[in-house]
Amino acid sequence: MFERAKIRLFVEHPLGEGQTIPLAKDQAHYLFGVMRRDQGDRVALFNGRDGEWTAEIVEAGKRAGTLSCLGQAAPQLDPPDLWLLFAPIKKQRTDFIVEKAAEMGASRIVPVLTEFTNSERVRVDRLQAHAVEAAEQCGGTFVPEVAEPVKLDRLLDAWDGSRHLMFCDETRAGAASALSGERDRPWAILIGPEGGFSETERKRLAALDAAAPVSLGPRILRADTAAVAAMTLWQSALGDW
Amino acid sequence: MFERAKIRLFVEHPLGEGQTIPLAKDQAHYLFGVMRRDQGDRVALFNGRDGEWTAEIVEAGKRAGTLSCLGQAAPQLDPPDLWLLFAPIKKQRTDFIVEKAAEMGASRIVPVLTEFTNSERVRVDRLQAHAVEAAEQCGGTFVPEVAEPVKLDRLLDAWDGSRHLMFCDETRAGAASALSGERDRPWAILIGPEGGFSETERKRLAALDAAAPVSLGPRILRADTAAVAAMTLWQSALGDW
Repeated sequence: MFERAKIRLFVEHPLGEGQTIPLAKDQAHYLFGVMRRDQGDRVALFNGRDGEWTAEIVEAGKRAGTLSCLGQAAPQLDPPDLWLLFAPIKKQRTDFIVEKAAEMGASRIVPVLTEFTNSERVRVDRLQAHAVEAAEQCGGTFVPEVAEPVKLDRLLDAWDGSRHLMFCDETRAGAASALSGERDRPWAILIGPEGGFSETERKRLAALDAAAPVSLGPRILRADTAAVAAMTLWQSALGDW
Repeated sequence: MFERAKIRLFVEHPLGEGQTIPLAKDQAHYLFGVMRRDQGDRVALFNGRDGEWTAEIVEAGKRAGTLSCLGQAAPQLDPPDLWLLFAPIKKQRTDFIVEKAAEMGASRIVPVLTEFTNSERVRVDRLQAHAVEAAEQCGGTFVPEVAEPVKLDRLLDAWDGSRHLMFCDETRAGAASALSGERDRPWAILIGPEGGFSETERKRLAALDAAAPVSLGPRILRADTAAVAAMTLWQSALGDW
């Protein structure tokens, strides 16, 4: 395995022995303009499929560039089949939730609109860019997909019963128990909005066979804190930690 | 117990049957100017010692006001004896760490300067204000103290061996084991800077009897993510969750 380079870039292009990778305009600007890298310097590349590869810069231009794969530096590490479902909140905290979900190893990020969700329009492309940046930063080789926002009712109507749903219900005490022995099943974590779930939503979630309500302690956590806390409980009990 | 009021304010004043509480200028502005509350409205008060009290507004002025305690709405809930030690990072993320530490139930927050810490001057008064705001927000009855920044070496020179130290060492795998059966002892969680600990610091921490290195999974977490994740592991294993 090659030594891992400090700067990491996500690319769509296939990675492998002798592959040549053209750089997009913004990546060329970042790599050559901002980070001042040049021909001969090494960069880490990943595309979510082929692990991490160490590549050498063969062409460095203002608006374009070319990299050449030297060798693999890390194997592909896909996260467990864990979705993070969250009700969008203020812009900055929504950005944080997406960043944290990528760092914590969620495989899919789904903005969910609940009765008490009040937030500006969700810009999926911006959130996806945050997920990419977080994956580049945290050394992961996978970028979770940010899905289009969906209404909670719609989501539950179409719920696949084989996917467990961990939802953070403030009325419930005792976390660990709800999270035992389902390692081989797909999971989703649902974080409610600042106002919590409505009574109707709470009942519907509780009635769901696949649902596992968990408590996140005696204090009421903000949505972004709750997202990290819930993913931590899941990862340490059932995930890749 | 009285029904809990939505708006919560931290005050220094003693709380109890028949107590009258004068409001500071900024709190009067927030309560009457921003939140538009007036005489007869109810507010939740806590001072970190007497639990949460429901109080009624008896005087509402532009720069001052008076509240009168009606009855206790929640008992005092002190957090476990858990310190969060963290290396200050960018302003916004440092603010987040302090907010999260208060939400997650840390009893004391200590900015620690390590070899690889690079950050602007730490403004303890601003961070303390963030801790108060987070406690008001999360329904807690306790506000962790934000201590003056201290050099890691100094901190370890004076370390009380009876306080366990959980530090997040990326070289170490397997979290849970390190956190068993010390429920009755005081603990501290140490989050390293973006650049990680230096080799010297790592060796010194590893040599410490009270130290329990833990892993936070295969991805490298940002300091603010690591703080929430580490406190979650601790709270669910040894704390008040």
